[in-house]
Amino acid sequence: MYENKKLEEAKPLVESREYGTLRHCLRELDPIDVAQLIGELPRQDRAAVFRMLSKNQAVQVFSELDPEDIQLIVSVTGEEELADMFDHLPTDDAVDVLEEMPAGVVKRILRGTNTQTRTQINRYLHYPENSAGRIMTASFVELKADMTVKQAIDHIRKDGEQQDHLDNCYVIGPERELLGSVTIKEILLASDSWKIKALMDDTPVYTDTHENQEQAALLLARYDLSALPVVDGETRLVGVITVDDALEVLEEETTKDLEQMAAMTPSHSQYLKTSVWSLAKNRVVWLLVLMFSAMVTGAILTRYEAAFAAMPVLVSFIPMITDTGGNAGSQSSTIVIRGMGLGEIAPRDGLRVLWKELRVSLLVGAVLALANFLRLYITYPGQMTVAFVVSASLLFTVVMAKCVGGILPVLAKLCKVDPAVMAAPLITTVVDACALMIYFSIAQRLLGV
Amino acid sequence: MYENKKLEEAKPLVESREYGTLRHCLRELDPIDVAQLIGELPRQDRAAVFRMLSKNQAVQVFSELDPEDIQLIVSVTGEEELADMFDHLPTDDAVDVLEEMPAGVVKRILRGTNTQTRTQINRYLHYPENSAGRIMTASFVELKADMTVKQAIDHIRKDGEQQDHLDNCYVIGPERELLGSVTIKEILLASDSWKIKALMDDTPVYTDTHENQEQAALLLARYDLSALPVVDGETRLVGVITVDDALEVLEEETTKDLEQMAAMTPSHSQYLKTSVWSLAKNRVVWLLVLMFSAMVTGAILTRYEAAFAAMPVLVSFIPMITDTGGNAGSQSSTIVIRGMGLGEIAPRDGLRVLWKELRVSLLVGAVLALANFLRLYITYPGQMTVAFVVSASLLFTVVMAKCVGGILPVLAKLCKVDPAVMAAPLITTVVDACALMIYFSIAQRLLGV
Repeated sequence: MYENKKLEEAKPLVESREYGTLRHCLRELDPIDVAQLIGELPRQDRAAVFRMLSKNQAVQVFSELDPEDIQLIVSVTGEEELADMFDHLPTDDAVDVLEEMPAGVVKRILRGTNTQTRTQINRYLHYPENSAGRIMTASFVELKADMTVKQAIDHIRKDGEQQDHLDNCYVIGPERELLGSVTIKEILLASDSWKIKALMDDTPVYTDTHENQEQAALLLARYDLSALPVVDGETRLVGVITVDDALEVLEEETTKDLEQMAAMTPSHSQYLKTSVWSLAKNRVVWLLVLMFSAMVTGAILTRYEAAFAAMPVLVSFIPMITDTGGNAGSQSSTIVIRGMGLGEIAPRDGLRVLWKELRVSLLVGAVLALANFLRLYITYPGQMTVAFVVSASLLFTVVMAKCVGGILPVLAKLCKVDPAVMAAPLITTVVDACALMIYFSIAQRLLGV
Repeated sequence: MYENKKLEEAKPLVESREYGTLRHCLRELDPIDVAQLIGELPRQDRAAVFRMLSKNQAVQVFSELDPEDIQLIVSVTGEEELADMFDHLPTDDAVDVLEEMPAGVVKRILRGTNTQTRTQINRYLHYPENSAGRIMTASFVELKADMTVKQAIDHIRKDGEQQDHLDNCYVIGPERELLGSVTIKEILLASDSWKIKALMDDTPVYTDTHENQEQAALLLARYDLSALPVVDGETRLVGVITVDDALEVLEEETTKDLEQMAAMTPSHSQYLKTSVWSLAKNRVVWLLVLMFSAMVTGAILTRYEAAFAAMPVLVSFIPMITDTGGNAGSQSSTIVIRGMGLGEIAPRDGLRVLWKELRVSLLVGAVLALANFLRLYITYPGQMTVAFVVSASLLFTVVMAKCVGGILPVLAKLCKVDPAVMAAPLITTVVDACALMIYFSIAQRLLGV
């Protein structure tokens, strides 16, 4: 594994207060490593180390810090200095930072920034949360269609300094409408006299400011793009989403899905840095909901009290049947939720999913039922009927669980609910209740209890 | 959502056999869309549509196809034509395709390719599976440290045509050792007379051919790189991993983790395209293992038969207690497994995780126990002791479940086992068994059953 030696070297320097060497060492570090270093220091040292950075590095490190560290830095930094930092941050990073801060602090910072920064930031804050507009950069190279390659290269070499993104250039028309895209590679490889018009891809993949971030990121991933142009309502080019931002969105969305599938309210911070209090808050709500819904299962069991009072051995198979049902169901829901997340399964595929799950579950259920029957035949030799009841219940439970697990995420999506949040945590409860009803109705019928 | 209109237009053209218009339409499509189109066609049409592509497009589409479509195309294509296609594929894509094919077919194809291709492919196949070496491209621009910017630009414009990756250039020494990296942006923005030496980052982040793919991809993501250089055992630069390949690795690894956490053998193909037979095979093994391990839980219950024969109401709380335990445990395991996957939690953090989970679980458990006690107090007014037994069991179960869920993934990692495969599916079983023991020992002690 890659070990960042310089990062390891820096840590003891803070402890031993060797500020001269530390300052030197910090200069060699990547902003991301500096941000990590600061986050790992005792609270009282963080601002001090941040103040050692050059202005240029400070700006880069600032947007990589955790929200709580940012608040700490903001609280000990003068307004003028802060505003100056925000004037130098890319707008999308500035907005990202501001979103995490209390309204009072935001006002205080914005007051000091220059008009251009303030206008830009306000425009970004106008885009819906989680929209493509929020993560795009407005800093990229624009070309005209009738430029020659030579003119384009000269323009890039002059204008590029101020732009964040340079690997792709975009060709715009008189109304700023997006006409095409051309990579720096294509420009460099062409002869000086060629026209950009002839080089550019005139049907570039693009998205609009109000598109969902995850959809935009998936588009970038699908077409292996290093940047995706973003247009406004009048198809004017307003920004570009770069692949590093897309990657971050995809990782965050996956983490969110995972947390929701495991019945948690998603959090935005790293586990080790999240307080016990917030972790507990994120988890307790769903556990309460599921606990109370498990009482339905309890109520069902109460109906069959007579059955297991007469035949206590029936109780000992309950965990196996409900667990197998839960596992079978979550296999199906997980695969369908992930498929929908990656855009591989659409809601219109619902019936295909159901038909597939039905066949898979019959196969899987039959194997499990058979294995179980053989095992019971050996361990409870006299009780063939019990063995049959348990095995038949297993088969029906698996079929029910897989169909529910396959179709519930699709239904959630159709109802515009996030499948991860709605479908996954509920599967166990729904499947448990159904499994017990299956088990005891079969038992009542065949064993007469 | 982005709708690819041209893709939608192409489909009916295949059906109606309008090959002239189709050929025209295909030319306008991205290779990824063509691959999708082919995959969605009836089997008998797939090869025919592939044959309509220009040679250049065919090469690009080929490596985007699903394994089964590739086999189909291979089976109807002449050896010479195939070998020619492999000569034009980037080595990493060629290896990717070959890995999915039977050994006989691989031999048949390699026989026809030229010596250079064959040597390259053999070298790649020599790197361990899932290693950085397997996904790197050997096609990138190399510069010398004492080149001027002008010389570098001229070199790039001449040499670049044959190289896949151009946004980053790498500076190598006389022994091909990696000296530094410089982006095309930095080169273009510098004055013609500057030396590359002065521009380059002389401590670039890099990895080696034997590093795990996922670790390499995480490195790329961490430092927002568009490419990561890869060196061999003698620190000679041999390749570059580009961000699109890294993104693919990260998505595949996440899908794998998700499938393993839901007790499935991971598959490499899309759900809708996987046969019922393979889906069933991927799911049944773990279900069998878990079914048999749930029998342990059953055996535990059998020990307490007397207790619930005497007091059947106790049975009705079993699902609530075990489900809550399972949910609480999988919350913890999910968050820890994801944290380890993203490199945010290391095995050495084990005790910190345990300490955190202990405090969180005490908080969460107390809330759940209290809520449950109040509810039982209302619904079973006379049975205060039962209410107390159930609530106390809930508290202890949640604490146990969260500690097990938090520490099991860390232990798996320490034992070099994939936490997703080992920890997640086992949590329910372990937690169920422990929860029942907790419940019935408390019940026996306090209720004397």
